[in-house]
Amino acid sequence: MALPYKKSDVIAAYARVKKSIHKTPVMTSALINEMAEAQLYFKCENLQKAGSFKIRGATNAILQLPELDRKKGVVTHSSGNFAQALALAARNLFVPAYIVMPENAPQVKVDAVKAYGAEIRFCENTQEQRVSTMEQWQKETGATFLHPYDNTDVILGQSTCAYELFDQVADLDNIISPVGGGGLISGTALSASFFSPETKVYAAEPKGADDAWHSFTYGEIYPSKNPQTIADGLLTSLGEYTFPVIRQLVRDIFIVTDEEIVEAMKLVWTRMKIIIEPSSATTLAVILKNKEQFRSQKTALIISGGNVDVNRLPF
Amino acid sequence: MALPYKKSDVIAAYARVKKSIHKTPVMTSALINEMAEAQLYFKCENLQKAGSFKIRGATNAILQLPELDRKKGVVTHSSGNFAQALALAARNLFVPAYIVMPENAPQVKVDAVKAYGAEIRFCENTQEQRVSTMEQWQKETGATFLHPYDNTDVILGQSTCAYELFDQVADLDNIISPVGGGGLISGTALSASFFSPETKVYAAEPKGADDAWHSFTYGEIYPSKNPQTIADGLLTSLGEYTFPVIRQLVRDIFIVTDEEIVEAMKLVWTRMKIIIEPSSATTLAVILKNKEQFRSQKTALIISGGNVDVNRLPF
Repeated sequence: MALPYKKSDVIAAYARVKKSIHKTPVMTSALINEMAEAQLYFKCENLQKAGSFKIRGATNAILQLPELDRKKGVVTHSSGNFAQALALAARNLFVPAYIVMPENAPQVKVDAVKAYGAEIRFCENTQEQRVSTMEQWQKETGATFLHPYDNTDVILGQSTCAYELFDQVADLDNIISPVGGGGLISGTALSASFFSPETKVYAAEPKGADDAWHSFTYGEIYPSKNPQTIADGLLTSLGEYTFPVIRQLVRDIFIVTDEEIVEAMKLVWTRMKIIIEPSSATTLAVILKNKEQFRSQKTALIISGGNVDVNRLPF
Repeated sequence: MALPYKKSDVIAAYARVKKSIHKTPVMTSALINEMAEAQLYFKCENLQKAGSFKIRGATNAILQLPELDRKKGVVTHSSGNFAQALALAARNLFVPAYIVMPENAPQVKVDAVKAYGAEIRFCENTQEQRVSTMEQWQKETGATFLHPYDNTDVILGQSTCAYELFDQVADLDNIISPVGGGGLISGTALSASFFSPETKVYAAEPKGADDAWHSFTYGEIYPSKNPQTIADGLLTSLGEYTFPVIRQLVRDIFIVTDEEIVEAMKLVWTRMKIIIEPSSATTLAVILKNKEQFRSQKTALIISGGNVDVNRLPF
């Protein structure tokens, strides 16, 4: 089945969002390269506005709404990076934002969403409650629901990250991106297919939430059931828009343990002096675990975000 | 008294070291600017090689040695960032390095020095023992002693940081740098006097180690006695080379408490996603404590380093 995206869609998405986002830097570390015996390029979306790549998709999706819908606002349910990103993107574009959060969401995330001026409603932390609270609010406001990842405009927004990257680093052999719901890896794979078809695209997934690996391997969406991992950004399941892109354009999904994730995270913190969240560290964990496969190659790692509660660190 | 430095000395130092160091980025944070009601520019020496600005001075001092002396190597005593920096600078330039460290030096720092291939000798943690161990080693090897800060070539090396900065940000109203032994602030003040004389230069010092403030205020070197602060890079006293530069070119020294330092450090970690050490956070602590004075102005903060033991954080 042909995917419903064209090269020009990515270029148009980038033109749309670039004023509202940072062109994030690509960092390298001589010491980590030595350890990995490879050339690694860290695409630092942890330094992105609101601390993760999610602002790309949020901004693109808002800008694709008709003027009238924009005025009525956007609504979503998220306890993670998409909540903050949508709140900030909406504020930047003068659009009202309504965010449904589970009542046990970390205070630090609630504070960030509030600081960006979004309205919040709390609900029980079940999928049913999140959806019904969101739908009720949608009825009251006429706001448009934006799914955190299973939305073509969100996916195209996320594709702008790798689009930038190919402009920053030439001749990449591989790109590795974390996979949760699949928005980032889908966007990454799309951009690679259009702008650097020789580059192989891989996903990194924690062992305690390996639903994407199952879905990829068995060919149908396998829902994430009671996921247990320190990589709190990767708990979600693939969606009907992200799954086909991954199935078609991603070469393989690598699994890493929480111990490997924490070790990689600590290495980046101490050697590169940047704060990355556990979800992002899955990519370096893949490299360190599969040294043979990546040896002497040029590999980009998408550092998806840096939103960590520094009062509750795993080391 | 005229200071023994010329504009051309700074330019020559930069030409000498630039191949061996990173041109570190200048970062900004919309959110912290909002909080401070000012325009702040963070000069990120935490992203420098070996994790601090010290490699600039170490590299310049080694390169100023005659060929024959270089072969015999360099020796110093340091438990901090200079030990790592000298070890790496020496390795880069194929020069032997001998580092005297106190026997209670943090393992993480010992490991870093070892990783850069320097030889280490341990001694009791007293000034006398450090100096005598160093002198004995110097006799055995013929190596040249490089003082961590009280050395004109080290000071000129550190001046290259602000030299870069003035090229990166125009029309700065102020620069704030931490002060410990005074190498960084001296170099900063020199570069400002030559390349941006309108820019006012301030130092930031922790309350528990406020010897530089005393020296500055009373006009003679006041030794640091039993300093107690979380800013472990700022425990040392001013020296005979750094003091006159500070006395003549620094506008004022601001004092901040450890609580203010930790709060500023946490703010940078969580909002900018970069790891800075407590010593570096003194600069932002000054801004947040003296909002009136810096309001609406363009101020650069020298983020001196990012060497923190992530297993032992103050939050």
